[in-house]
Amino acid sequence: MTDNSQSGRLALICGAGALPALLARAAGAPLICAVDGYEVEGLTPDIQFRLERLVPFLDRLHDEGVTRVAFAGGIRRPRLDPALFDPATAQLVPKILPAIQQGDDALLRAILALYEDAGFTVLGAHDIAPDLVPDAGVLGRSAPTAADERDAARAAEIVAALGAVDVGQGAVVAQGLCLAVESLPGTDAMLDFVAATGVALRPDPKGARGVLYKAPKPGQERRMDLPALGPETVRRAAAAGLAGIAWEAGGVLLLGREAVEAEAEAAGLFLWAREP
Amino acid sequence: MTDNSQSGRLALICGAGALPALLARAAGAPLICAVDGYEVEGLTPDIQFRLERLVPFLDRLHDEGVTRVAFAGGIRRPRLDPALFDPATAQLVPKILPAIQQGDDALLRAILALYEDAGFTVLGAHDIAPDLVPDAGVLGRSAPTAADERDAARAAEIVAALGAVDVGQGAVVAQGLCLAVESLPGTDAMLDFVAATGVALRPDPKGARGVLYKAPKPGQERRMDLPALGPETVRRAAAAGLAGIAWEAGGVLLLGREAVEAEAEAAGLFLWAREP
Repeated sequence: MTDNSQSGRLALICGAGALPALLARAAGAPLICAVDGYEVEGLTPDIQFRLERLVPFLDRLHDEGVTRVAFAGGIRRPRLDPALFDPATAQLVPKILPAIQQGDDALLRAILALYEDAGFTVLGAHDIAPDLVPDAGVLGRSAPTAADERDAARAAEIVAALGAVDVGQGAVVAQGLCLAVESLPGTDAMLDFVAATGVALRPDPKGARGVLYKAPKPGQERRMDLPALGPETVRRAAAAGLAGIAWEAGGVLLLGREAVEAEAEAAGLFLWAREP
Repeated sequence: MTDNSQSGRLALICGAGALPALLARAAGAPLICAVDGYEVEGLTPDIQFRLERLVPFLDRLHDEGVTRVAFAGGIRRPRLDPALFDPATAQLVPKILPAIQQGDDALLRAILALYEDAGFTVLGAHDIAPDLVPDAGVLGRSAPTAADERDAARAAEIVAALGAVDVGQGAVVAQGLCLAVESLPGTDAMLDFVAATGVALRPDPKGARGVLYKAPKPGQERRMDLPALGPETVRRAAAAGLAGIAWEAGGVLLLGREAVEAEAEAAGLFLWAREP
């Protein structure tokens, strides 16, 4: 929920993918911020900043009347140039380094804390565009079968186990068998892997074709880096021969809900926001 | 350890891969048994049997003077033909079906129990050929660096989490990041995936190149289906750009230890039986 009492300006900290443009549209006219050198799909940055100069950037946000920030889209772990640090940002490095070594989620929490320590309210994508995070239920016309529901439950169990060790946010299960597990290369690479390897592994050729399941990690900070599904995910799931896509309701972003639903309908895949 | 007081004949129940021939050589002249229609690499079966007629097969083993059996090599979940069951084997189906639905490890335990219930002693590969299961330590000339040791520890954590939900027995970690997780398609497919996707994902191009780690599932029945490494694994790990291979000491089979060591030495990879 957006708190209207905090009606200062919103800054979008933009990374890769379709999310920044979708959130910018939903948010009216936020300040668009991007890491120097990164392209932002469909948007022209108002401010470019370098991570080595984070503190001057935060000062600039205050100067622009920003009180709220939201993170949108993925940023690959960037290389840092020690020569570019300003003294104030250099002071923050000892806070961040242990988090980098602990894994993605710790790092994201540490970054979020830096913004909150600087006095900003950090919003999640669902605060700005609730439509991108559908409530529990089946979307569109195709529904999972009982076998698909079992495959989704098995995949959810696997993703939860992986999440507990800070790995991946997805898995593919067919007929109870785990055909693939998501790791650093991401969902699309996992689906391509299933397309290349999985067909012959399903025990019953006429049985359940399998489910892609996505969920955030247990206890994941939901204001950053929620797993996402887009039309391309649906196309690749169809190419992998799957019956449909399920995800943890409230924990996964649909990047372009209409396009996702249209692709799923064209391919005959179900879309299911599953109650965890 | 082979118990010499149980000096009845040994039957090898053979599946796919190089293990049956390696165990047959180590065991002298065991009775070679294979599922009807399956080829056994380098061996000619003495007895072929069908799973639908398991009880008559067990009776035949008794007739041949067999008191000990060992399982060697993988058997993909076979399709069963209901028309072929004999009445005694049909009685066992209700015992097996729940295990099939619980996952691989439960199924293997149930099959092992059938042999034990029929009065056979079930040996593990390490009982017959201890040389295939090396003790803790580094094999060959290359040794892991401190960064490789950290990657192996991280991968071991991931494999343990996956094993707890009965998935996979391997993972690839480089510079602390999980590049791939093993699922049904197996280790070779995982390494090919890393070769195709992983190079650009390592944050520091001059940093640690990554480790393949393999381990049995926690609590896994070690007399069946131990994870295995062979010369082909080493070749694919080298093609994936990894620094070496580590595994849980005592829990992984080396299929052809000399060939594995020779391949690793040629490619400059370390081989490390890691104390869990």
